[in-house]
Amino acid sequence: MLYLDGRILDPGRARIDPRDRGFLLGDGLFETMRADRGRVPFLDRHLDRLEAGAAVLGIPLPRSRDAIAEACFEVLHANQLGDRLAAVRLTLSRGPGPRGLAPPADPVPTLLVAATVITDVASCPARAVISSIRRNEHSPLCRVKSLNYLDNVLALREARDRGADEAILRNTAGRLACASAANLVLVRDGALLTPGLEEGVLPGITRAVLVEIARDLGIPAEQARLPTSAVKGADEALLTNSLLGIRPIVQIDGERVGKGGPGPLTRRLQRAYAERAHQAD
Amino acid sequence: MLYLDGRILDPGRARIDPRDRGFLLGDGLFETMRADRGRVPFLDRHLDRLEAGAAVLGIPLPRSRDAIAEACFEVLHANQLGDRLAAVRLTLSRGPGPRGLAPPADPVPTLLVAATVITDVASCPARAVISSIRRNEHSPLCRVKSLNYLDNVLALREARDRGADEAILRNTAGRLACASAANLVLVRDGALLTPGLEEGVLPGITRAVLVEIARDLGIPAEQARLPTSAVKGADEALLTNSLLGIRPIVQIDGERVGKGGPGPLTRRLQRAYAERAHQAD
Repeated sequence: MLYLDGRILDPGRARIDPRDRGFLLGDGLFETMRADRGRVPFLDRHLDRLEAGAAVLGIPLPRSRDAIAEACFEVLHANQLGDRLAAVRLTLSRGPGPRGLAPPADPVPTLLVAATVITDVASCPARAVISSIRRNEHSPLCRVKSLNYLDNVLALREARDRGADEAILRNTAGRLACASAANLVLVRDGALLTPGLEEGVLPGITRAVLVEIARDLGIPAEQARLPTSAVKGADEALLTNSLLGIRPIVQIDGERVGKGGPGPLTRRLQRAYAERAHQAD
Repeated sequence: MLYLDGRILDPGRARIDPRDRGFLLGDGLFETMRADRGRVPFLDRHLDRLEAGAAVLGIPLPRSRDAIAEACFEVLHANQLGDRLAAVRLTLSRGPGPRGLAPPADPVPTLLVAATVITDVASCPARAVISSIRRNEHSPLCRVKSLNYLDNVLALREARDRGADEAILRNTAGRLACASAANLVLVRDGALLTPGLEEGVLPGITRAVLVEIARDLGIPAEQARLPTSAVKGADEALLTNSLLGIRPIVQIDGERVGKGGPGPLTRRLQRAYAERAHQAD
């Protein structure tokens, strides 16, 4: 069951208009959230990011924040996911429009929410490769979770073809940016280093929470410009996203990261993040 | 009326599945073709490009080339556009898939064809601005007509906000690439200069036909690396795409191009292109 524009529907009966600009031009946004036994930690932050992205694209929110939040819980309930671990995906497109690139003057946006049961993979260490596809830091889209996700799809395919779990994308300047669907954090000499937003990375919710946790724990956390060679000097490396939480990277391009297993700081941050997510509303 | 997966339907009854990866991730391709009184010039070249793009993305064509071509004519007929000027848009997505970026092993692609009446704007000179958004030449998508078209949408919006008709995008190296939905060609000292494919531009059908025409007419035509300053030294500038054909640019960033009107070579090429399109199958 999914939520579409105010109604809970069977996916087989739910209909996206073939003139929807989300389908025709990727003209829209999404959020992916983790639901844990009926709770959606950091939901407010996801709605903040959705609102900010919608403002960049000029898409009006078709419902109030409360109604959008409520839709997420309705979908979880309709799919009997109230006591499971689930992914909630919220999609907002500009809705149908006439032919061409120019948006309609009075858009009727499409709002879709779906939920799927997931298994926890955060504890499963990832092997990554540096992708040949570059993140475009010269586009406003690099900091918006837009429906233009095909670069990420191709980067993940490349990683899988090369026997890895994840792809790390550099930006067009050749510096480290992010993974196909996660932010990247390196650990060096007890400090966290993560590419800054100006490097072309999405302002990840988990990334932001992690930086807050690090500050609370007295762990230095810095946004930095990281050359590819920074992975060689890293003691630990990790991925963050809302579904994974914090996932260790143990190998990059066939070479071990640090000692080749989840590092002590990664484990400590995983525990602190789990606690923070448990407390969050 | 439109064509969707083998059937001619009323748009109000046609349904894209909300799990379609075209909608969720921009995972697909499109072609826009000009139909002139029931004929679709260069249709074969559009289908070639569709096939090439589908191979890059790993999307199988769900119908034969002949059936796809036939669908275009069926849509024109169903909309009584057989004696009009029309835009035919063909959209191919990877179809529905499970949650996440990884494509399904056995995709069932979605094939949509729509047609709309258009008016001829090729003779209407365009004012352009250089966009702040850059074309990513470090992604395979820059040479594929994918559904990830939001950069182009934002670039066009920027151009309109600045009182212009079109946006010219540079690549991330800062050199000229293309317009929001057209290729860019400069004329200097009687020769055509157009950014090469490696500069991050789509292999435009009209661009290719124009280069062939130039060769037949003994006009030098060169693929080049063009700095932004090249527009200042240009005698003429023009846009090419399948709907426009060849459209003169008379102003860039508020400054006149050449003498500020459609140039003699542009006019000559427009006539030759119209003839070629008239003869093409």
